[in-house]
Formats: sequence, structure tokens, C-alpha cells
Amino acid sequence: MVVVVKNDIDKAQQEHLVEWLRSMNIDVHETVGEFETILGLIGDTSHVDIDLINSLDIVEKVTRISEPFKNANRKFHPDDTVVDIGGFKIGGGNFQYIAGPCSVESPEQICSIARETKEAGAMLLRGGAFKPRTSPYAFQGMRAEGLKLLEKANAETGMPIVTEIMDISHLELFENVDVIQVGARNMQNFELLKELGHTDKPILLKRGLSSTMEELLMSAEYIMAGGNEKVILCERGIRTFEKYTRNTMDVSAIALLKEKSHLPVIADPSHAAGLSRLVRPLALSAVAAGADGLMIEVHNDPAHALCDGPQALTPSQFAQVVKEAEVIRKVLHGNNED
Amino acid sequence: MVVVVKNDIDKAQQEHLVEWLRSMNIDVHETVGEFETILGLIGDTSHVDIDLINSLDIVEKVTRISEPFKNANRKFHPDDTVVDIGGFKIGGGNFQYIAGPCSVESPEQICSIARETKEAGAMLLRGGAFKPRTSPYAFQGMRAEGLKLLEKANAETGMPIVTEIMDISHLELFENVDVIQVGARNMQNFELLKELGHTDKPILLKRGLSSTMEELLMSAEYIMAGGNEKVILCERGIRTFEKYTRNTMDVSAIALLKEKSHLPVIADPSHAAGLSRLVRPLALSAVAAGADGLMIEVHNDPAHALCDGPQALTPSQFAQVVKEAEVIRKVLHGNNED
Amino acid sequence: MVVVVKNDIDKAQQEHLVEWLRSMNIDVHETVGEFETILGLIGDTSHVDIDLINSLDIVEKVTRISEPFKNANRKFHPDDTVVDIGGFKIGGGNFQYIAGPCSVESPEQICSIARETKEAGAMLLRGGAFKPRTSPYAFQGMRAEGLKLLEKANAETGMPIVTEIMDISHLELFENVDVIQVGARNMQNFELLKELGHTDKPILLKRGLSSTMEELLMSAEYIMAGGNEKVILCERGIRTFEKYTRNTMDVSAIALLKEKSHLPVIADPSHAAGLSRLVRPLALSAVAAGADGLMIEVHNDPAHALCDGPQALTPSQFAQVVKEAEVIRKVLHGNNED
Amino acid sequence: MVVVVKNDIDKAQQEHLVEWLRSMNIDVHETVGEFETILGLIGDTSHVDIDLINSLDIVEKVTRISEPFKNANRKFHPDDTVVDIGGFKIGGGNFQYIAGPCSVESPEQICSIARETKEAGAMLLRGGAFKPRTSPYAFQGMRAEGLKLLEKANAETGMPIVTEIMDISHLELFENVDVIQVGARNMQNFELLKELGHTDKPILLKRGLSSTMEELLMSAEYIMAGGNEKVILCERGIRTFEKYTRNTMDVSAIALLKEKSHLPVIADPSHAAGLSRLVRPLALSAVAAGADGLMIEVHNDPAHALCDGPQALTPSQFAQVVKEAEVIRKVLHGNNED
Repeated sequence: MVVVVKNDIDKAQQEHLVEWLRSMNIDVHETVGEFETILGLIGDTSHVDIDLINSLDIVEKVTRISEPFKNANRKFHPDDTVVDIGGFKIGGGNFQYIAGPCSVESPEQICSIARETKEAGAMLLRGGAFKPRTSPYAFQGMRAEGLKLLEKANAETGMPIVTEIMDISHLELFENVDVIQVGARNMQNFELLKELGHTDKPILLKRGLSSTMEELLMSAEYIMAGGNEKVILCERGIRTFEKYTRNTMDVSAIALLKEKSHLPVIADPSHAAGLSRLVRPLALSAVAAGADGLMIEVHNDPAHALCDGPQALTPSQFAQVVKEAEVIRKVLHGNNED
Repeated sequence: MVVVVKNDIDKAQQEHLVEWLRSMNIDVHETVGEFETILGLIGDTSHVDIDLINSLDIVEKVTRISEPFKNANRKFHPDDTVVDIGGFKIGGGNFQYIAGPCSVESPEQICSIARETKEAGAMLLRGGAFKPRTSPYAFQGMRAEGLKLLEKANAETGMPIVTEIMDISHLELFENVDVIQVGARNMQNFELLKELGHTDKPILLKRGLSSTMEELLMSAEYIMAGGNEKVILCERGIRTFEKYTRNTMDVSAIALLKEKSHLPVIADPSHAAGLSRLVRPLALSAVAAGADGLMIEVHNDPAHALCDGPQALTPSQFAQVVKEAEVIRKVLHGNNED
Repeated sequence: MVVVVKNDIDKAQQEHLVEWLRSMNIDVHETVGEFETILGLIGDTSHVDIDLINSLDIVEKVTRISEPFKNANRKFHPDDTVVDIGGFKIGGGNFQYIAGPCSVESPEQICSIARETKEAGAMLLRGGAFKPRTSPYAFQGMRAEGLKLLEKANAETGMPIVTEIMDISHLELFENVDVIQVGARNMQNFELLKELGHTDKPILLKRGLSSTMEELLMSAEYIMAGGNEKVILCERGIRTFEKYTRNTMDVSAIALLKEKSHLPVIADPSHAAGLSRLVRPLALSAVAAGADGLMIEVHNDPAHALCDGPQALTPSQFAQVVKEAEVIRKVLHGNNED
Repeated sequence: MVVVVKNDIDKAQQEHLVEWLRSMNIDVHETVGEFETILGLIGDTSHVDIDLINSLDIVEKVTRISEPFKNANRKFHPDDTVVDIGGFKIGGGNFQYIAGPCSVESPEQICSIARETKEAGAMLLRGGAFKPRTSPYAFQGMRAEGLKLLEKANAETGMPIVTEIMDISHLELFENVDVIQVGARNMQNFELLKELGHTDKPILLKRGLSSTMEELLMSAEYIMAGGNEKVILCERGIRTFEKYTRNTMDVSAIALLKEKSHLPVIADPSHAAGLSRLVRPLALSAVAAGADGLMIEVHNDPAHALCDGPQALTPSQFAQVVKEAEVIRKVLHGNNED
């Protein structure tokens, strides 16, 4: 951390600051310039409150040099984390396709989509039971009953289940869920993250609509600090000024998150754009950028498309995406072998 | 709602859509153009899923004309809502100053700030007991113990208490809290909003870091749909590309929210910028834009400023803001009487 | 276009509006609802000023249904535009690699980079002579002299030249330039766009840092309205709240621009991130999303990297990207043949 | 400037960097930490290219400590700049109201608006002759003829003229213009800025739609570096994700720009929101935040409002804003005298 202190100040205040820093076992090196003094802080500054220092009248600027995340940081854990989901591995060169409907609606619907997506190449089944909806008047999901239907689909197909949690109080209902998803709107629901840190289930953590990569990694850190290291990061589009798309998928985040962290990173091209005809190009883009997996909405009955989201593919469209994505993965892999 | 349908389509699909809309008691008027057909939907469209219609292949564009919020909508409730907090009214021309420290730290600290801010003109006392922090390694607040200290400060000064809730499971601890605050990061924690809709306490709902005004009003709608109409909206700065400030206070939101809704709207200039020297200009700006109240961080001991946030004023700075804000309020009020 | 008119108004004003619209040969269909009236406008509304209508007191909302761009619109020109640059075609399935240094610095530098990038697979040579720099104290480019050096490199290698124009008054200097680039900061320099519309050179039009896709297409429209249809669109990253990258490359724009318009769309992964180690993943992402070309910064002397931008690849890194991009292009193409 | 260098590198490269910096008369102080080395740069770093250093493989991070602007920097020029416009002063406690129509349309229109706004309290007359329009099909202004009409209005009322320039080649037409406005879309038209730096006319420089405050100050620096110190900064709303308003007025920028720079700062509440009913609250907000002036669109014939922008006030609405703004100015001024 670097603290820039003004020069025209009461030097006692600067010494007060330096002493306080040293009391936290931090070495402080001063460089005095014409207009300001640079304090270089050496040591473990992850516990130092940057906002607090920034608030001091004598301080002109504070810059963090070390990232504030530790457990999620590749610097301290150079090897890729591999998360095992009922035998399906993700990360460290392992790639998974997660597919299924926006919402679980009936036993027939979820079981038939499960079968069809499995055949099309999906390993994991996603489906919403608890649905976060902007409007209180919109369908809120089948909730506990939806979880039961997902279990049924799992029993029939053997596909591990990925589904979203919306509140700590529902946690016991998720006993048979394989991967617990934290949605974009809950990415900074810190009490929920802490609780998930005490479970031993893989957590699929989606990036918030306008969360920086660093904030996403800090939210992963909340879970990992509790002891649960099985975190999968998910890029799903960020909010920008653009109006033609609902969100803007940030492919650079896929590459950068994998550089900064050892955790697996997947992409959700269905929510990134909000338009089904953009799912294919965005899915392939994400794979080309180095994603460890794709989560894609699939519906199985075009005739009843009225009940499906604007971002869902048919199983055959999904199968085509899988086919193309596999070729792109080989390109990237081939390169690594050169 | 207006649905634009392409012209080069299977007309049976268009009829399927029109029938489905009519089954929801919606009148549909067609206007056929050269390249597309405009369907004008007349009736209560608040239950129609706009995303769902948008997903249809035959649809080019959907535009909502009526706002999707009802209970919060001024169109249906022209008169200002006035929220009564232990005799202190907010909204409908009534203005309140809410002040206090970022975090509750000790009985001495909270009681002495309470006394000083009360003397400086504050009516309500704010103070964080549960603190949402980006880092799991930062101080998370005194939690339940902090609430006890706030109750003590209330007993000593009579100031009603405003403090933030972070999870449904803490709700019973908030029995003696006068106003429950929902923070920016929980603005779309829908399960929490639903639960607060079943309480009878005033809710101070902060705008999310990158939530649109409409999303804020939809979150208010979640609370009101449960029966609790005592919602106070709060502008606290939105996330933009600008780097000199932590957030950008959106003063136009203050004026527009009051136009669109009958709910009171206050501003939090302390968090809007993240710099104490900007609190005064932003506070006065918010008042000039028509805010119904101000929530401001105040600390009482400059010598120990190290333990206070970068956005806190001293009690005497706060008193000066109150004095100036009162003159601006009179300007606006005088104008209304012309 | 759809105009929503309030119901509680002086109907004479509404008739005044309708008459005015009809005087422009626009058909107006009324649908009267409980709270508002929907006017459906049928005909060529591209000349109607949407802001002007929106300003009327009687109007609640206006929505454009037809895109405001015509020459650039795929609806009216279904076939891909193919731009021919000295025999190198771009668009309509033709793909080009444009490579070269950030700034032209000397005859040796530009000629040697030209040779090396050509060998690595580049067809066109880029190089900055006029440099738009945020600071007046930064190097502003070799200007006219730089253009001469580019001509020299073209004479040696036969590679057509792509370089940026910054002001109309420089236009005559660009006589021997093959493709004139309009930079992100000049995307809405409308006087410059008009002038370029009267030339017959291909124009490479970069998306502004925070321009919507529609604004980019409207700027293309400025050029095309003047008679020059040889416009190449370029996605180069947009400004968002994210801090780890300089800009956020919008891959969805590549796919959507090609859907909305018949013009070729290329990507500039070097500027999109501002980090050389992200150029490869972003380049491959852009190709996977359907781009018609890549423009990449290449420097040829790692020992003097001090004088190169943070976003430049070495020629051998560039050659590797070309190799991988070609495989991805085949994947996409194979799919089209299915 | 602070440069953070990785530790696991070839130390010769670090020495190469340090020598290069010292060759520019910059002192370099090293602080060696466990994972990285901090180089503190002391001296005039305004000529050091931060992007260039950031590009080096050995560098982890670079942070500028001194602002990159000098002439515009309050640190080096503590006193407020006062710009004199034909006897009307702006800055240093002097406040001006600039009013007039969006576009100049006829001699009658501009002269009558000039008279009415002058009576309502305006000192300077604004009016668009060259109009930057998103669409090539929209009215582009009366151009040279419009300038003549502004001169006529000046001759009749004595009000100095403020009008926008769009291209260097038009500069000689602006001989009788009192203040040359640079619009938001040209804020980084560096060739135009350089040229204006060689004139002796006051320049009203509008903030770009998504320009940071630092970029605005760097653009002012371009003008000032040429010798013209008469620059007036103008906040006019920035682009955000919000959809209810066209732009978001950034009141914190008004306060911060005045802190960072000695230049006068005015606000344009008409363009900030794009809605006439928000002009009054935004104008008063801007004054409360410390603005040195207001630029407001006024039209004079509500019956022909069809030809005016959505953001224009009537003269009597404008007179009311002036009245209220004056009271707020006294509040702020009174405070300074305490």
C-alpha cells in the first residue's frame, strides 16, 4: 500500500499515522518530494482499512498495491483449483456444460429437458426453483416444490443439480442440491456468503450486475474465509449504457479472473445479452476467452415458447453450440501444447 | 404496452399471441404498417411479462407505457405519503435530518454523538450495528450489541433510531428500532423485502449502486405489496465511470422519484461522494432538488478521526449544513406559495 | 414510431400534433386507453425529430420502432457489403488482419514491422501518424512526415495503409492512404464525417468510448448519406465502471451490428483492454463472435519495448493469434455450411 | 508517481527503467517489499508517459500522484480565474446567467428571445448556429447565417454571444462571437482545442458525455498550453445506465472541479436531464453545489413549442429560476462571510 501525505501539514499527525501503521507490524518507508511525501507500506496490509486512511485530512491519496483477496489469489495458490461435482470436474483444464430451463415448471418439463440436454452434451442440470424477479407480481418460482422436481430429474438422469438460493433460511432445503448458485443480485449479500462458507457444497458465484472483478473476488473470499474453497466464478454480463442488449458480457473478465485467481471461471451467455440469438456467438466468445464452462438456458418445446425466457435455446441449437465450442477448446488446448 | 410484430411471419403465431393477451382481459388494437404491425395493449398490463413477449420470434420490440409499479405510483395516489416516526413526520412538506456515526462503537461514543447531533439540529439518530463490508477481514459491526447501544442512546435523547438490517434472521432483534434501513447492496434482496412488507415499521430503502429509478420503485413495491406502505426512498449515489468520487449523486433522481411516486425521498450525501468535504455541497444540492430529508454521517471527536469514515462531518460542520439547508428549503417553499 | 399522449389534456393540442404529422405524409392510428392514448405512426418517420415530440407537454412517451438509420440498415440492404482495399476484401465472409505499431517512429521501424507482420499473416498495415493524446504534453505523432513513412512501407511491402485522420484540414495529406480511420474520440465529429462522405476511400469507423451501437450506425449513416458506402465498423471497447481493464470489449456488439447492418465489423482487441496479455483472448473472442477482421498493435523490438504501447504484441505472438483465429473461423464457417 | 515493480524479475531491466527516469531529471527512491518493490518518483513527472511504463513486463502497477494538468491546477494557481466577457465577469464570486434558444431560427425569434431573457435576468445570449445532431437527416442549424442573426441580437440588446463551434475551418466566422463553446462531442477534438488555444476569446468547454473530470481538465490544459487561459468549464450531465433521464447531472463535479482547478465552472441543467420540468431543480442544485453560472435553454412562444427542444423553459419560468437561484447564492455567500 502506498499512502501519499501532503507536505504542508502538522507533522505530528503524520507521525501518529506512521506509529499506528507500525503497531500493525507494517514497515513504513518515507520518500519526501517537493509537494508531497510518499509512504511505502511493506508487510501484510490486507487488514488495513483503506477508506479509513483515505479519510484523514493529511492524506492526499492511498493506493493498494497488493490485492485485498488472499484465499482466492493466484499469487499464493499458483495451481488451478479443480471443483469436483459428483465426478464431473471443472477447472484445471476440465470444462463442463450446465444447461436447463429458466424455471422449473412441472415434472414432465424438467425431466424431459434434462434428458434432452444430457443427450445434447450437458453434464449438469440447471433450473430455477427460487426466482429473483424485479416485480413482486411476476412468477416467483415453484420454490421448495421446484427443488423436489429437480431431485426427481437428477434421479432419472444422474445429472448433478445447480440451482439458486435466495435466503439463508432456505439452506436446509438445498441438502440434495449439488451446486448452490448465488445470483447476481445477492453477490454482496454478505450474511448469505458467510453461511455458505460453512457448507461443503460447491458454490457458483455470479458476478453482480455492476460489480468489479475485485468485488467478485472479495465475495469469493467471504465464502473461502469460512472454510469452503469450492467456489466457481461466473461472468454473466454487466450493466452499461448500451440499450440494444440487456447486459454487456465482459469477456476480458473471463481471462483476467483466471489470471488473478486460481478458481474456475464459467460464463452464462444466456443472461449476458438477454436475446436467444446472441447466445451462440457469446458462448463461443467465452470459450475462446478461456472459460472453464458454460451455463446455458434451454427449453424443449418451441410451440410453447411463450412460457420460456427470451434467452433460451432449443436442445438442437444447444447441441450445435456444444459441437462448435469443443472445436474452439481444442484450438486453445493445442496452443498450450506447442 | 405496445408490441411491435414483424410483418413477414406466420400470422397464426400473431393470433396466438393476441388471443393469449385477450385471455388476460387486455384489449388489443392493431395498426398495420409497411414493415411491421403495432399492437396497442389497453387494460391492466402490470401482470404481463414483458421479457416473455420480447422472447417471441415474431416480436420486434415491446415497450411498456404504464409504469410497472402500482402502490408506489403517484398516478394512483396523487397525495404525498407522510411517514410518522415517533412523532417526527417525513414527506408532504415535512423534512427530517438523520445523523450519526458510521458504526456504533461504544456507549460513550453513540450517546455523545446523539446528544451533539440533536443539539445541532438532527431529529433522528443513525448508526451502523450490522455493517456490510466488501472485505471479510474488515470490522463487521457490533451487531446485536450495537443495537442495544442504540436503544440506550434513544433512551437518553429520545431520538428515534435508524439502522440497517442485513438478513431476515435478525429481524426480531430490530423490535426497538424505529426505522429499518435496507442498504444499497440489499435493494434487490427480494426475500428480505417481502418479509419487511409484513412488518409495520417504516423502511428506509436505499437505491442500489447501479439500480435504475424504476428498479428502486419496484423494490418499494415489493414492500408495499405485503401491506407496509411506510417506505422512504433514499438516493445515495450511483456507480459511474468517474474516478475522482466513489459514487455520483443523482440529484435528478430526487426530483423524478417525487414526480413518479408519492413516497418521501431523502438523500445520503455522505455515501454519495465518499469524501467529507463534498458532504456540504451535495447536501445543499439535494435540498435544492426537493429532497424530504438528509441522512448525514457525523463523528464527534476529530482527534480520533482515525476511527471514523472518510465521509463524516463534525457536529459543528453538520450544524452549519442544517442552517444553510433550512434557508434553501424556505426558498423552495416560498416559491410554492406564489 | 409510437407516441403516447396523456388523456387529461386539451384535445386541440393533440389534433395539432396529428395534423402536423400527417403533413409529413405519416399515417396516424389512435388507440384510446383508460389513462392514455396510443398514436401509431405509419410511414417514413426517419425525418421526424423524436426529441421535439418528446418535448410536448401532452406527450407521455415516444418510442421509435424503425431504426433511424437507412443506408446502413440491413433491412433495406440484406446482402453483406464487401469493401475492397487494393484487392483485399473485407465483409461477406472475407476476413482481414490489420497490424502495425501504435505510432510511426522512423523509416526503419515502420518498414521492418511491415515486413514482419506481413510474414506473420497481416494483409494491411496500420500505424499512427496523427495521434490523439489525452495530454497536450504527450507525443502527438510524426504527423505529415509519418504519412510519408507509411507510404514508403507500402512501396516496400505492397501492404495497403490504414491510418487515423484527426481534422478535415489534413484530408489532402491522406491522398495515398488506403483506408482512413476515424478514431473513437471523433466518432461524432459530424463535420469530419460529412467530409469523408464525399471521398471515395474506405473509412474505418471506430465506436466511441461510450457510444451506443445505434449512435455508431448513425455516424456511419453520416458518411453514407454523402455517397461513400465503403464504411467498416470497429468495436474497440467501451467505458464501464470496471477498473482492472481500460475498456470493456463488447463482443455482443460484433454480433448485433452484423445483424442490424450489412457493413463489415472488425475488432481492435489491443485498445479494448489496454493490456497486451489480453490481446490474444480478446482477439479469439471477437473472431468467435463473428468479426470480419482484426486490427492488432504489433511492435518488433522487445528490447526497446519502452517505446511501445502497453497493448502491443511481438510479431511471433501475432502470428500465433492468426493461426488460432483461422481455426476458429473455420469452425464458424463449417457451421454455416451445415 | 509511484511505480510498483515485481520482485521475480531480471534486475537489469529495473535498472534500465530507473536510469531512463533519472535521465528525465526524476529522483527515484526504492522501497523493497516481500512481493514487490515500490519506486517513488520525485520531480516533474508530467512529461512521463504512464501508459508506456505500465506496458513494461516488469511493472505491476503505476499510479500518478500529482495531477497531470498544470496550467489548470489550483495547486499552482490558488486564486480563482475571473473571465471577463464584455464587462460581465464569471468566476471568483461572479455569477452569470446565459440563456437563449436551442437553435437560431429567424431574426424575429432570436431578437425577441434575447430581449425577454435579458429582462428575466440573463446577461449572456446563447443560441445554436452550427448544431451537432446524431442524425444526418435532422436540422443542422442555420450555420453562418445563424451567426449573423446572433450578431444582430447582440447589436439590439448588448448581450454578449455564446455559440458553439464544430470545426476549425469555421473559426474565422466566429470573429464577432464573444464566447466560443466547445460541445460535449468535441471535448477531445484535440486539433480544435489546440487552435482555440491560439485565439484570445473565452472558451466555454463542455464536459464530454462520458469524460472523467480529469479528462475535462486535460482538455482545458490543451487550450491553456496554447496561451489562452480564458477557459470556462461546464458540467452538462454524464452518461449512465439510468433510463428515465437522458443524462445524469454530476453535481459533485461542480464542487470538485472548483477544488482541483482555479477555472470557473458553470452548469447546463437543460441538457443534463433532457426534460424541461427538471431544469428548475437541477439549476438550483447546481447553484447550491457552488456553480459560477447557469446556461439555460429558453423559448419564447409556447404556442410554437413544437419547434423548441424538450428541455426549454419559457421566459417567465426562467425568471423564477433566476429569482430562486439568487437567494441560494446569498445563502452560500453568507456562509463564506461567517
